[in-house]
Order: sequence, then C-alpha cells, then structure tokens
Amino acid sequence: MSTGARTLASARDAAEADVVAWVGQRRKAHRFSVRQVPLDALEDWRVDPETGNLRHATGRFFSVEGLRVRASYPAAAIFHQPIVNQPEIGILGILAKRFAGELRFLMQAKMEPGNVNLVQLSPTVQATRSNYTQAHGGSRVRYLEYFQDRRRSRVLADQLQSEQGAFFLRKRNRNIIVETSEDVAAHEDFCWLTLAQLKRALKADNLVNMDTRTVLSAIPLTGGAQWGPATRPPAGGFAAALVESARARNRGELGDEEILSWLTELKSTAQIEVQTLPLNRLPGWKRDALSIRRDDGRYFEVIGISVEADSREVGGWCQPIVRPCETGIAGFLVQERRGVLHFLVQARMEPGIFDILELGPTVQHVPGMDNPVPFLEYFERAVPDRVRHASLQSEEGGRFYHYQNRNMIVELPASDSLEAPFGYAWMTLGQIHELLRYNNYLNVEARGLIACLNAGDARQ
Amino acid sequence: MSTGARTLASARDAAEADVVAWVGQRRKAHRFSVRQVPLDALEDWRVDPETGNLRHATGRFFSVEGLRVRASYPAAAIFHQPIVNQPEIGILGILAKRFAGELRFLMQAKMEPGNVNLVQLSPTVQATRSNYTQAHGGSRVRYLEYFQDRRRSRVLADQLQSEQGAFFLRKRNRNIIVETSEDVAAHEDFCWLTLAQLKRALKADNLVNMDTRTVLSAIPLTGGAQWGPATRPPAGGFAAALVESARARNRGELGDEEILSWLTELKSTAQIEVQTLPLNRLPGWKRDALSIRRDDGRYFEVIGISVEADSREVGGWCQPIVRPCETGIAGFLVQERRGVLHFLVQARMEPGIFDILELGPTVQHVPGMDNPVPFLEYFERAVPDRVRHASLQSEEGGRFYHYQNRNMIVELPASDSLEAPFGYAWMTLGQIHELLRYNNYLNVEARGLIACLNAGDARQ
Repeated sequence: MSTGARTLASARDAAEADVVAWVGQRRKAHRFSVRQVPLDALEDWRVDPETGNLRHATGRFFSVEGLRVRASYPAAAIFHQPIVNQPEIGILGILAKRFAGELRFLMQAKMEPGNVNLVQLSPTVQATRSNYTQAHGGSRVRYLEYFQDRRRSRVLADQLQSEQGAFFLRKRNRNIIVETSEDVAAHEDFCWLTLAQLKRALKADNLVNMDTRTVLSAIPLTGGAQWGPATRPPAGGFAAALVESARARNRGELGDEEILSWLTELKSTAQIEVQTLPLNRLPGWKRDALSIRRDDGRYFEVIGISVEADSREVGGWCQPIVRPCETGIAGFLVQERRGVLHFLVQARMEPGIFDILELGPTVQHVPGMDNPVPFLEYFERAVPDRVRHASLQSEEGGRFYHYQNRNMIVELPASDSLEAPFGYAWMTLGQIHELLRYNNYLNVEARGLIACLNAGDARQ
Repeated sequence: MSTGARTLASARDAAEADVVAWVGQRRKAHRFSVRQVPLDALEDWRVDPETGNLRHATGRFFSVEGLRVRASYPAAAIFHQPIVNQPEIGILGILAKRFAGELRFLMQAKMEPGNVNLVQLSPTVQATRSNYTQAHGGSRVRYLEYFQDRRRSRVLADQLQSEQGAFFLRKRNRNIIVETSEDVAAHEDFCWLTLAQLKRALKADNLVNMDTRTVLSAIPLTGGAQWGPATRPPAGGFAAALVESARARNRGELGDEEILSWLTELKSTAQIEVQTLPLNRLPGWKRDALSIRRDDGRYFEVIGISVEADSREVGGWCQPIVRPCETGIAGFLVQERRGVLHFLVQARMEPGIFDILELGPTVQHVPGMDNPVPFLEYFERAVPDRVRHASLQSEEGGRFYHYQNRNMIVELPASDSLEAPFGYAWMTLGQIHELLRYNNYLNVEARGLIACLNAGDARQ
C-alpha cells in the first residue's frame, strides 16, 4: 500500500497540486520507455502480404485497414483513409465508494504509450476484451470483479459509448460506474478521489485521460438519487447557470421531441457509404518502412512503437499507433438564450460512426480535415473573460501517439445573435444529459467537454 | 372526393364495422392481381450470374443476398439464410389534424401485394426512398409535402425504427407523425380516423398494416402535451392498469438505470458476426425456377410475383418477396408486480439487427426458428379470460407474402411466481414508452403489440 495514495485519500480538500504530485510520483516509481520502430519490426504483428493491412498474429486486439467513404453530408465528398478496426467492446469502469457519505472514485495512475506525459489518471478498469479475457496471457485486470459481479456492487451508470469516428471503425466501449460497500484496498497505483478533485484535475493539461473523461460525462451536474447532491452548491455566475441548464428539459430553444426529430431528419436524408479497402491500395496514401501517411503529410500517419514497462499487465509489447499531425480543437459555444444557458451542438458525420451521425461540440477540428471549420474563429480569437474552460486534453494513449485537443468552452454575450445553421442546434445541458444516457448520441469529443463542466466549484 | 370517406370522417363514433366496410369498398373500387412467376421472369430484376443475388436493374429498392451468422447469444450458433438488404431509409408517416379539438389521423386504404386481403389501413405516406424520390418514374407520393416541409406541419413524433431483423439486414424506416392546421382534402383512398377508431380496428384481423402499427406505437397511453388527454378515461380493470403502468417510471421491478445497464451488459458480452455470402452458395438452401428455399422446407422461401394494380404510384411491377412457411406468434406476458402491470420483455439477437440486440415481446416465434420457444405454452394454452388481446396481424405486404403473426397479450395472475430468466426483464409500460423514443431499442414485433394496447376503451 502506497503511503502517498493513503494520505491523499484521507485529505478531503486535497488541491489539484496533490493529484499532480501523486501522478508524478507514480510516474517516477515505474520504468517506461517508448520508441518508434519500423512497421515490419512490430513483434506479433503481421502485414498482410496481399492487402497491406496490419493485424495482430492472434487476430485479436485491433487491425489497421483502409476505408473508402462516400458521404452526402454536410456536403458531397469522397475520401480514403486508414482506419483502426476494433470490433471488441471493452470496459471503461470506475469503482465508487462512499467515505463519510461522500462518493469517491478509485482512479488509476496508468501508463499509456501515446500519452505526452506517459502517466495520466485513468478509470479503475480500462481494458479491451482481449485484455480482460487475458488473450495476451498477461496478468489479471485489477478490480475487474466489481464490474462483473453484481453482488459486489450496484450500477450508477452503464452505457455503450462511441470513440473517435474519424479514426475508429464503429468502436464502442462500455462506460460504467459502480458503487461498492465492500472494503477495497487501493493498490499503490490507485487513489480514491472525490468528484470535486476530479473536476479540478480536469482544469490541468493532460492529467485526466480520455477514458476517464468519457465515463465521468455520465454524472449529471444536477446530482441525483444515486449521485447525491452536487458537492458544493453553486455560488452564482457561470456555475449557477450550468446547474440551471442541467435542470432544463423542454425549456430549450427546441423541445425534446424537436431535437429527436431534427436528428432523425438528418439521419434519414444524409447518406454515407463506407467500404473497407486494402490498406496498400488507398489513393493518396503511401507507405515506407516507418509509416503509412498521406502524400501531403496532412491528417495523420500510422507508425509502429515498441513499449517497455514494468507496470502493465504485460511487461513489454509492440503495436501500431495513430499519430495525428497536429493539435486539434474541441470547443462548445454556449450562450444564455431565453434565460437558460444553451450549448451549440453539431450533428457530425464521420467515417467510423456507428449510426450515421453523432452530436459533437460546436467545433471539432480534426487536424488536416474540415477546411474551413465553421465557428473556429470564436475559439482562436476568444476574449479571455469569455473563456469558461480551456485545457489541453489527450486522446486515448493506447491508440493515439501524442494526440491532444485544446478543449474550450466559450460563452457568447446573451445579446449576440447567432442562429444555429443547418446541421447545428442549440440545446440545454439537461437535454444533452438525457441523450447521454442512451447509445450513439453524443460523440467522445462532446462527452469529454461535458466532463470538464464544473458546477461544484465557484472558482470556475 | 369519396362520399364514403367524407361520411366516415364526420361520424365521431363510427364503429369498427364502418372502417371494415370502407376498406372493403376501396378494395372493390380498384383492380388488383398478384400471381407467382419464376424468379428468372421478374421484369427489371437481375440474377447476378456469379453470386445468384437478386437485385433491381437500377441497383435501387432492395436486393436479396446470402448471410452467414455466427452468434454467441442466447446460445452459440452458426447458420445461413437469405436476407433482404434494403439500406435506404424510407418514410412511414401519418398526417394528423384536429377536428373540433380531437386529433384525427389520415389513413390510407392501400394495396400491398403480400397482404392476405390485399388492402389494409396504411399510414398517410408509406414510401421507400426510391418511391418518394421517384426512382421508378411513378407518380408523386400524395401528402409527402406535409412531412418534408416543416412550415406546413409540426412534428408530434419522429424516430428511426427497425424492421424484422430475422429477414432484413439493418432495415430502418423513419416513423413520423405530424400535425397540420391546413385544410387537407382527403383523396378517395384516404380517411380521417380517431385514435379510438384505430385502436378498435386493431382488434380485427389483418385490417391495420404493420407500418401503421409501428407508427402508432409512438403514441403513449398516458396522452401528453402534443396528444391531448386519453380519448376516454379508463373505467377500471385492465385499461386502468395499462394507464397506470404507462405512467410508471422508476417504479418498475428494475429501475430505469438498471434496465439500461441490463441491456448494456448483454450487448457487451453477446457477440454476433454477420457476413454476406453469395446467395447461390448458402449451405442448406437450394434454388429452383420458382423459389429459393431450405432443403427441409422450413423457415421461409423467396418467390417472385407479378403485380397488376391501377391504384399504386405505378400500374404494375414484378418483385421478389419473402414467404414464411407458417403463421408466427408475437405475444407479451403481462403481470401485476408490486402493484403495477409489468411486461416480460426479451432481449433478442437477430441477424439483421442494427445494434446487436433489440427488445422483443416475451414470445416471438419466427416460423421454423427458435425451437424450443420459451413461454410458448402460455400463449398456445392461454385461458380465455386471461387473454387481454388476440388478433392476427400481417407483416409488411410489400416484402412478405401472406405472413401473419398471432398477436397476443396474456395476463398472468398476480399470485403466479415467474422470475425473468437470463435475457428477459419485467418492465412497466412507461419504461417501454421511454425506450421507444430512441433508436434501436424496441423491435417491430414489440412495437406492433404496444400499438394494440387500448386504454381508451373500457370494453377491452
């Protein structure tokens, strides 16, 4: 048992600095190394001689294939790209427990090879199906039993949620939060944190990983029967407006049924055809020993890495990984409309999306794509006192190498006139929370931003 | 303008007999003929010489292909079957309008070649995308403008819903109800009916078609802001229990979050692999001049028909059509549990389902499949005074030839002990209604039964 973890767990008002310090300490306690290797030198991975597709020798984990996409929305387009095909549904699970009546979450300081700082705060369990069924012959996944055995916990939230449709073919993971009343010993890489601590940690750059952010997005700002009341009552200003927006159903600019109808109409008229192609026959993409990339160097490349670690289920491995060419932006424009804070949501079509369209933030700028990007200037030239949140957040370090998005919330003055254009809708946070309870509505970039919203802390 | 339609529209309490008479009159007013023809003789359809797949010369409408399915749920199985591939999203739309404050629905007496009685009550608009974009060069789809132009109507319900996963590959249609305040002239094949009239018509065999039933399932028994109050207050007994069940959220045996979690868990662990195969290389299936069918004659066959009609958008056409080998059963067991009526719902995996599993009725007996069928004896040997609904209903007559399902609701005595086995859950009607608002939750067989529930009529 780590003294660091124990001390922090009992420190009710531990500041963000303590969480940073603890993660830093865990980073130093382990030995990690990640280095790029040629794609042909990835142990246990095979390049199919006919298709050029990359796949694991066992046929499990994931593969990298080619995709041809023909879409009619938002404008007619045909394009080709590599895609990560990971049909397995994994588990992103956070174990919760009440300490003196307050819910705490068992967070893990976990190394992922693609993280800019290697170690970030991860869910209690973050495991592909191949991981947790031990396909690679590694060690047991810690705390998995609390998610698999309903006698040892009760479910607070449990939903299949999608991941980046620009890079993954229909990938989804089970996002689950369970509460136990058992005594749980925290392993030295794990630490019990309150929601308030996590919300503060989300203000820091690259501290809370993507998997944690998507799971936390299930916790509504209104609190609720299973969550208890909000940690601290809002002290006016933006925090109070957030809570009011979270409570607002059918008080939005669009009614709840109108939002469903808006999305149904778009799904019924937008068309997307997705066809897998051999990776070695993708127009506009080329391959050399080190990478698969576009002729013009834009968007992303697929590279190979070799990982050495002493803290993972297995000590070392090789894998392909996606390296986007630059930092992206994910941002919500928010505005008080009819007395309630609204979020400008975008219906996005992406090649790997499970159900035609998903709702994303106002701006989701995938590097090298989407030119011009509507509303980008609101974020690039935001007036500082209108910025309600700004942080750099990492995308999943198990599949992406050093891929960061600037996450921003920018509030428009209530007096500005901005009607939602085609493909966009103004929604209250309550309407967003409601859709979040169901599959295939909010995309991972939107969910990550929702997780950053903090109503329990008047300083925001 | 038809006198028949006009008279009926003004007869507030028109009995079921009047609706039957009107549909019968429309049937006589037109000339229809349907005859079986060899698959090779289907004008405008092509048998692919390599695959044996059937497709329209234009590449539109639908195709018949082969499927190989490997599933792990409810038990491990591998099987092969033909499947109808219709990726287009069509419109099933009902136009509503208030007459003296009461909502009426513009229903169509429509011929479909596979209907046992040729003409049934259909939605105002029932059109594939090829139909309504006039791919076949036919005439305009009547009343389509009310569904496409939001200035001419407001949306009451609007959702993508699936169709038979045992026969269709991921087929979905837009189920939409809109209300207009314009004066709308009813063409002679159309008639304004109240919800009470439709509910009574649903007690008759093969009078209300599948497309109408799935659209009507969106109207909750509780009424609501856009629907107005229930037509008549329930007069106790089963009707009152239905309304109470429709109002019950989070009062079910399982909480709302527990139901979502139950389904997420099943989707995360059940596995299905679906692979299209050439139709002429399906193990266990053979083909002769007249049909594609199983060696043992079970399940269904694909045949060809030639249709002559004077009332459709086009006067005559040929098409392949699916003919199941016998009548099926779709039935809900219901029971008062903890003082509220519950429905025993089954999570079903079928080859064409869009998202792994959908919720079906307690028993859904596809002819020739599913042996033995759990709970079948409750319907085959139901005590008459426990049967709350029984009717023969047709599946969609544009794709199925004479395919009927006995639709039944059977109430268990509250004193009977029946725990939901693996893959089943007891849910209140309110919980079912809530899931019905979203995509990909309730299957078409469940929705058809929900539409038959009648709380507005004490005689039920």
